[in-house]
Amino acid sequence: MKNNDFEDIVYGRTSIKNFDKNVKIERKEMLEMIQKATLAPSSVNMQPWRFVVVDSKEGKEKLRPLMKFNTNQNDTSSAMVVIFGDLRCYEKAEEIFSKSVELGFMSEEFKKKKLARFLPYFQNASSQKLHDNAVMNCSLVAMQFMLVARSFGYDTNAIGGFEYDKITTVLGLDEKRYIPVMIVAIGKADYEICGSSRLKASEITTFI
Amino acid sequence: MKNNDFEDIVYGRTSIKNFDKNVKIERKEMLEMIQKATLAPSSVNMQPWRFVVVDSKEGKEKLRPLMKFNTNQNDTSSAMVVIFGDLRCYEKAEEIFSKSVELGFMSEEFKKKKLARFLPYFQNASSQKLHDNAVMNCSLVAMQFMLVARSFGYDTNAIGGFEYDKITTVLGLDEKRYIPVMIVAIGKADYEICGSSRLKASEITTFI
Repeated sequence: MKNNDFEDIVYGRTSIKNFDKNVKIERKEMLEMIQKATLAPSSVNMQPWRFVVVDSKEGKEKLRPLMKFNTNQNDTSSAMVVIFGDLRCYEKAEEIFSKSVELGFMSEEFKKKKLARFLPYFQNASSQKLHDNAVMNCSLVAMQFMLVARSFGYDTNAIGGFEYDKITTVLGLDEKRYIPVMIVAIGKADYEICGSSRLKASEITTFI
Repeated sequence: MKNNDFEDIVYGRTSIKNFDKNVKIERKEMLEMIQKATLAPSSVNMQPWRFVVVDSKEGKEKLRPLMKFNTNQNDTSSAMVVIFGDLRCYEKAEEIFSKSVELGFMSEEFKKKKLARFLPYFQNASSQKLHDNAVMNCSLVAMQFMLVARSFGYDTNAIGGFEYDKITTVLGLDEKRYIPVMIVAIGKADYEICGSSRLKASEITTFI
């Protein structure tokens, strides 16, 4: 970890379109960042996020034709971290809650109650609901991943512009089960970071 | 700002189900947190997030019947921050890019090129695509809001379990234009924060 200054990390983040090609991120360090990013919350702690880290020449070549406006990030980043939502995430419910019991965060009794209450909710959810659940939770983890990356000294770009209909199959996943949500390009900026504007909070907020 | 320790803020965050009822957050401070949260990225900087901050007794009473498993957070939090996605966010494109020009982040020429390239993309997008765009970007801002809140000394709970089909109308918004994405309950925890478990990064990550 290179930086622990919250203000600098969070308010200094901007989207980077061109990375230093010489920077490579070790897979061990990438897993460390992903682990920390997944401390983000998810609905009923189902953690529907799955990561495909494209960091090899071969992987980047597979991704390139799918990148629309964003081939430059693919060509220059250390890695393209593709975040997929697992529509059957609830199959890990037993494993997740058992681990919480083991770590002392939950009693066995509470685990059983929680499974009985929420498993049917997921099992009976509409496909639109499961889809939204995946998009929402994967975006939460993506935001936290971008900030964790900054604390490790890296820059990122969240990318929504790519071929959604093709990427799952191209990366070898079952498209009935996994939906692509976002790609986070990660590396080191090869230019001076500049800002971007935002609407005034008072213009987009109502109090009731 | 109470805390600037990134590790403490980000890795110490957990979902709070019960808040200290005596804590009230001033609306000015709430707007400050929202402003900082909106430094999160969004697709083409369209910032589709809109906030309805429910912090009055009357507002909470309106929300209560819609809260499913989460009435306790509604009853005890300082505020329920309801985040909506604006499906016509691109109507603010001209305003957003003009502000970027004014602040020196973009040239007038680049602004025109960007508008010409991306406006049609939004205008012609399918309703599913606009929906996903809203859910994704509103979730990014929600995550950043939860972390900003921690840096201000508050705790949060991201809530997805509420009556999606009713909340927009109940809060007086046009349901053709605004889709509810998430509620973030905010206040101060009235109990000792404990952790929750996560899957191992190596189990949910593939390298290509």
